[in-house]
Amino acid sequence: MKAGTIFGVGLGPGAADLMTLRAERLLRKTSTIAYFRKKGRAGRARTTVEEVLRHDVREIAMEYPVTTEIPLSDPAYNEALSGFYNKEAARLRDIAEGGEDVVVLAEGDPFFYGSFMHLHARLKDHVPVEVVPGVTAMSAAWTAAGMPITWGDDRLAVLTGTSGKSDLADAMAQADALVVMKTGRHLDKVRDALVQSRKAAGAIVVEFAEMPQERVRPLDEVGGSELPYFSIILVPGTGRRP
Amino acid sequence: MKAGTIFGVGLGPGAADLMTLRAERLLRKTSTIAYFRKKGRAGRARTTVEEVLRHDVREIAMEYPVTTEIPLSDPAYNEALSGFYNKEAARLRDIAEGGEDVVVLAEGDPFFYGSFMHLHARLKDHVPVEVVPGVTAMSAAWTAAGMPITWGDDRLAVLTGTSGKSDLADAMAQADALVVMKTGRHLDKVRDALVQSRKAAGAIVVEFAEMPQERVRPLDEVGGSELPYFSIILVPGTGRRP
Repeated sequence: MKAGTIFGVGLGPGAADLMTLRAERLLRKTSTIAYFRKKGRAGRARTTVEEVLRHDVREIAMEYPVTTEIPLSDPAYNEALSGFYNKEAARLRDIAEGGEDVVVLAEGDPFFYGSFMHLHARLKDHVPVEVVPGVTAMSAAWTAAGMPITWGDDRLAVLTGTSGKSDLADAMAQADALVVMKTGRHLDKVRDALVQSRKAAGAIVVEFAEMPQERVRPLDEVGGSELPYFSIILVPGTGRRP
Repeated sequence: MKAGTIFGVGLGPGAADLMTLRAERLLRKTSTIAYFRKKGRAGRARTTVEEVLRHDVREIAMEYPVTTEIPLSDPAYNEALSGFYNKEAARLRDIAEGGEDVVVLAEGDPFFYGSFMHLHARLKDHVPVEVVPGVTAMSAAWTAAGMPITWGDDRLAVLTGTSGKSDLADAMAQADALVVMKTGRHLDKVRDALVQSRKAAGAIVVEFAEMPQERVRPLDEVGGSELPYFSIILVPGTGRRP
């Protein structure tokens, strides 16, 4: 029997019409989908594809055992997630080895800070795996802000708020344009690093880009020490503009 | 009279089915398109949308006055391009002020090293301008390589081969994952910077991602001192992998 293919399909930043034609065609015909979600939630990836799926589609919800309850630095975090990815990869592998395709939903682009990567690493040597790239959340963010991010020779650094402060400040100082993902509860640290690297003045906060709650503000108008999960901080570059 | 809107529409990396549903819908109904191209060429953006356009669509080809004939550092380069963007922006503005929409084709994502940005800067304060984000060429490149680019807290640097060698090497040394765009005839310099920053061993060259001539090779199997225009060098990150 011929093995099925596991497709890791990028859905883009959230609005259903920002998925690609290739993603939509795969979703329309697939008999099985799989997606990550937080326990007790519908899952945003699943919600995005609501209008596209077959009525008889089989659904595999992969529920994270932990999200922010355990700090990333605790070995228990890594252990819980590792077991979870092993189990879900085995489940998908069984289906593919049974001859059926599975479409795994991935927000944004599957290979850019995506959970699908952890399945891909466990599956790629055993069953056919194909990836469909998608529009990233950062593209949606700079589009929402109305601000081109890189001009001419601009050097762009993409950083995560979960990094250490001096790592952040060093990378910021050396870049012309910045994108900071995963800021969440690390806003104070990220703000300090931006100030230290003299990048704070141009920083823009984009929340929920391409979602109904979309909001764009200069960083210096943002109070508090936390941002929603779907937030991105941008510092547009200032390179060559003929 | 109500002014028309100028849409900057990301087409994605090249394959027609990697454009978004939003882009396709705009293209299907628009009466006027505009696109950049090199003199004497059909233009890759234009070729990508061939199957989607209305048969009576009006076409505005915007032909670069120079591409690589004059070095970037020569003031004549900047002058020629500046005049060109002024002229083309005025032409589009006239159409919008006449009440008609125009869809401007943009390869990849319009706000990520895109020529559309130079029209956007000249138009946004005068007529309605809307941007549709797209899948970037770098997403297509790491997808073609089968390699997730960023894991966990990885810091990604996106650089251009047109930058100076020490700028490149410094930024490379500080990043966990790398994307180098616009390498072209700067391959020797980029290779030196990768060696200097101890990143050369993991580097992958992707040519023509998502195009018929797609090719993926480790950098150390690539000879010569030039790469085709549509090439991207990748160094995947090695961050947290539960």
